[in-house]
Amino acid sequence: MLPFARVTIIGIGLIGSSIARATRAAMPSVALTGYDADPEVREIAERLDMFDDVASSSGAAVIDADLVILCVPVGAMEAAAREFAAELPAEAVVSDVGSCKAEVVRALASALPNATIVPAHPVAGTERSGPEAGFATLFHKRWCILTPPEGTDALAVERVAEFWRRLGAEIETMAPDHHDRVLAITSHLPHLIAYTIVGTASDMEEVTQSEVIKYSAGGFRDFTRIAASDPTMWRDVFLANREAVLDMLQRFSEDLSALQRAIRWGKGDELFDLFTKTRAVRRGIIEQGQDDPAPDFGRTHE
Amino acid sequence: MLPFARVTIIGIGLIGSSIARATRAAMPSVALTGYDADPEVREIAERLDMFDDVASSSGAAVIDADLVILCVPVGAMEAAAREFAAELPAEAVVSDVGSCKAEVVRALASALPNATIVPAHPVAGTERSGPEAGFATLFHKRWCILTPPEGTDALAVERVAEFWRRLGAEIETMAPDHHDRVLAITSHLPHLIAYTIVGTASDMEEVTQSEVIKYSAGGFRDFTRIAASDPTMWRDVFLANREAVLDMLQRFSEDLSALQRAIRWGKGDELFDLFTKTRAVRRGIIEQGQDDPAPDFGRTHE
Repeated sequence: MLPFARVTIIGIGLIGSSIARATRAAMPSVALTGYDADPEVREIAERLDMFDDVASSSGAAVIDADLVILCVPVGAMEAAAREFAAELPAEAVVSDVGSCKAEVVRALASALPNATIVPAHPVAGTERSGPEAGFATLFHKRWCILTPPEGTDALAVERVAEFWRRLGAEIETMAPDHHDRVLAITSHLPHLIAYTIVGTASDMEEVTQSEVIKYSAGGFRDFTRIAASDPTMWRDVFLANREAVLDMLQRFSEDLSALQRAIRWGKGDELFDLFTKTRAVRRGIIEQGQDDPAPDFGRTHE
Repeated sequence: MLPFARVTIIGIGLIGSSIARATRAAMPSVALTGYDADPEVREIAERLDMFDDVASSSGAAVIDADLVILCVPVGAMEAAAREFAAELPAEAVVSDVGSCKAEVVRALASALPNATIVPAHPVAGTERSGPEAGFATLFHKRWCILTPPEGTDALAVERVAEFWRRLGAEIETMAPDHHDRVLAITSHLPHLIAYTIVGTASDMEEVTQSEVIKYSAGGFRDFTRIAASDPTMWRDVFLANREAVLDMLQRFSEDLSALQRAIRWGKGDELFDLFTKTRAVRRGIIEQGQDDPAPDFGRTHE
């Protein structure tokens, strides 16, 4: 039995369009409805035939849904939810894919005070944005974290979990605050640092942009991928998860200062010890199937 | 006509073994000799049949070479060069593959005062180390930077350039100091930051190592690749290119503080502007063939 028969996706970007494609692939009998605030995106979604129906308003999109998934930037969640609140069926479950959860839990509870809400975060993505960037296998073997507030209907949580399992994801459940601290270090801080270093490299006066690009294979190019991620999405993440991000940033800055000092004073042993320890983390990631085991991320070398 | 007929490689790690394989593939008639200070590595090189001859001393390895390439960590260059100085033929050209050049130019000039030295840096690599990690296509379409000191014999420079062209590399020439500043931003600082954040994430008390690994697909895993690079090589790079690295680190820290402030005070526009600008750098890298155009570095999503 399918966990949901009528699924509506609000926001047809990388994640929304990937959920649509993955649902079509894994649960072809599900009736899929999509909506995006941008008429151009709706047109692309129609053309790519990702949904059974692309609605022209979010109210019309949710009117007979039993699962509604909000796939909009974190800062747009509350307004997007308010927009369809009056049309939402009483028995529908509402979920989302936001990268920070405490703020989203607050926003959705405020916009939909009587709805059953099961917040979710599939930890997956690429640097591409928009409806054409999605693909059906994006969530395979990736973790989807559910952060149901206390008192959430257990059956609704299990149905959302089962929905994500069918898309190929593994499920974990945790409190919204803990989620936000874990993701601050595994996702938000890495993006912040990548954006910063790419900015720093762009602003050099003595090293040209052309040199930065030419010699990027020395390591820099690894940072440019996540620094090419969607600007709106990431602005919202940093504003919504401000405290956890600032705390992680503080820890990172302290560690960087220690390393700076080790370089200044020529403490080779300290450098060597850290550089040895960090190899083990990569091994763990590869052993647990969270990255490509091939060297250089499996990039082609022809 | 081949630029060199008898090539000796001192140090059979990722780069040395890749040069050997690439030379075999591109110039099969070159007589290839290898040497490594570690007898176990020499044995592996014998078994993998990468060289015509694996010598048991570096003096024996260079005795009839017309090109000697030092492929040892930057901090080991001077001692490695001194070891074969007495056996080096007068007409041989000496080169290296070190990631910083001012210090290597000094070290080699001191160890080999009468030799023709053409320092080189192929900007290519993977996170793997050792003789089994090398492959013949590593240098294809990558830049090899030559940093001949003023007064270096122009013909020797051109022969080394031609050697690298045959291995598939593109050639650029610049002063050692400029090289060290360019690479500080495109390679050394990225490695330093990657090592730091992987260390920071390992040291969290409230977020477990297992959580860091599980949710690394949110961005963190991109950093773990270069933080798995060879610890000895990188310790030496930071010690040898100390001033340029500390300067770039200072710029990066200032930019990070500005971003930190923007987050603290909720300045979404500042964040959005930076996040938009950084996308252009990625586009440039892809347009110039310095990274995989496929999303997510072309990682497999099955």
